[in-house]
Amino acid sequence: MNSGRRQDDGERYRTILETAARLICERGYEGTSMQEIAAACRMTKAGLYHHVQNKEQLLFDIMSYGMDAFEQQVLDQVRHLEDPVARLRECMRLNIHLVTGGCSKEVIIILHEHATLTGEARAFIDSRKKAYVRFLEDSFSEAVRLGRIRTVQPTVAAFSFLGMVLWIYKWFQPDGRLTAEQVSNEMVELLFAGLVSPAVAAVPGAGAPQLSIVPPVAVGEKS
Amino acid sequence: MNSGRRQDDGERYRTILETAARLICERGYEGTSMQEIAAACRMTKAGLYHHVQNKEQLLFDIMSYGMDAFEQQVLDQVRHLEDPVARLRECMRLNIHLVTGGCSKEVIIILHEHATLTGEARAFIDSRKKAYVRFLEDSFSEAVRLGRIRTVQPTVAAFSFLGMVLWIYKWFQPDGRLTAEQVSNEMVELLFAGLVSPAVAAVPGAGAPQLSIVPPVAVGEKS
Repeated sequence: MNSGRRQDDGERYRTILETAARLICERGYEGTSMQEIAAACRMTKAGLYHHVQNKEQLLFDIMSYGMDAFEQQVLDQVRHLEDPVARLRECMRLNIHLVTGGCSKEVIIILHEHATLTGEARAFIDSRKKAYVRFLEDSFSEAVRLGRIRTVQPTVAAFSFLGMVLWIYKWFQPDGRLTAEQVSNEMVELLFAGLVSPAVAAVPGAGAPQLSIVPPVAVGEKS
Repeated sequence: MNSGRRQDDGERYRTILETAARLICERGYEGTSMQEIAAACRMTKAGLYHHVQNKEQLLFDIMSYGMDAFEQQVLDQVRHLEDPVARLRECMRLNIHLVTGGCSKEVIIILHEHATLTGEARAFIDSRKKAYVRFLEDSFSEAVRLGRIRTVQPTVAAFSFLGMVLWIYKWFQPDGRLTAEQVSNEMVELLFAGLVSPAVAAVPGAGAPQLSIVPPVAVGEKS
């Protein structure tokens, strides 16, 4: 939202973003017209254009709102955690709760409409996504370096983490047989229980020797 | 392709599917017109409609072709493997090679346009996808039952497997620093090395006792 906007306009704009996100989520960006968004907001099309420059600006603002929520609810909560394995585990748990919870619309749009934005807007959202990938790669690299987990290729580990977590929007049903809590507990164990040495896991933060189940290989990082 | 079609028509239709898949992959289904598909095939729009009933039929045929390729190149290659862990590992390896290789267009369309089809066509594609999920769930359940891996919730394990593998289309670059082979080797170890007891892994097929890192819990299955 523009910083110069009045409080009421800000709240109104927030409601427009929520409504537009719901429609775009259901019908896709191409399948949703500004006319339909205006109607769903109980506004005229002219009234909608008072608040938003054009449809691409609306999409960018929805994605930015989603990235803000992600950074506040996930990244900012775990950055300070000193132990990289505790940091990664908590990060996965919080990200799963973001995807299964109230922000799923914005998350779906960020993922599904990734190629829709153009130019600077696209570059800006992409750079925020890449910062998350880099954060995960760095945390996996640090965990290997400290001997907290066995050797893994950090880029593959980071994208495996992301694939597990972000795929959830495709299959998870809030009213299904599995709760978000169950999915989160199971998935965190699935990825990390086998990576961490039981001995090391029992003494968090201790620089224990590496497991030798998989022989160490050269760790490459994507530029 | 229609079974009554002549050989030449069949080859022609295959070329149309390939071309349409490339365009839809680049621009999305909504963003691609039959006029553009015809032009890319060097045909008139009327000529294109000689081969295909409508755009939705074309999308369905592209997805069916992708599912055929998946079943032939992945599922049919591993179904017969008796050991569930060997079956799952080989299945992941082959599926990764499908996603990183020549069939990535069709895979992307199946994933990205999952909500575009309607009615019976959608139900048919969905049922083929669900059969794969069930195959993975059953294999994980069997691996737990035989004591080949520690206890996992089979639905979460199946969708974690799928998320890791299918997310690859979002980030893998064929000309990047990581080869498809590296991604495949790393990812298979990431998921399975920690699940399988080293003792059990050394004697494939042996019904060794379960690991006790994670206490056994009731295994639920999605209906």
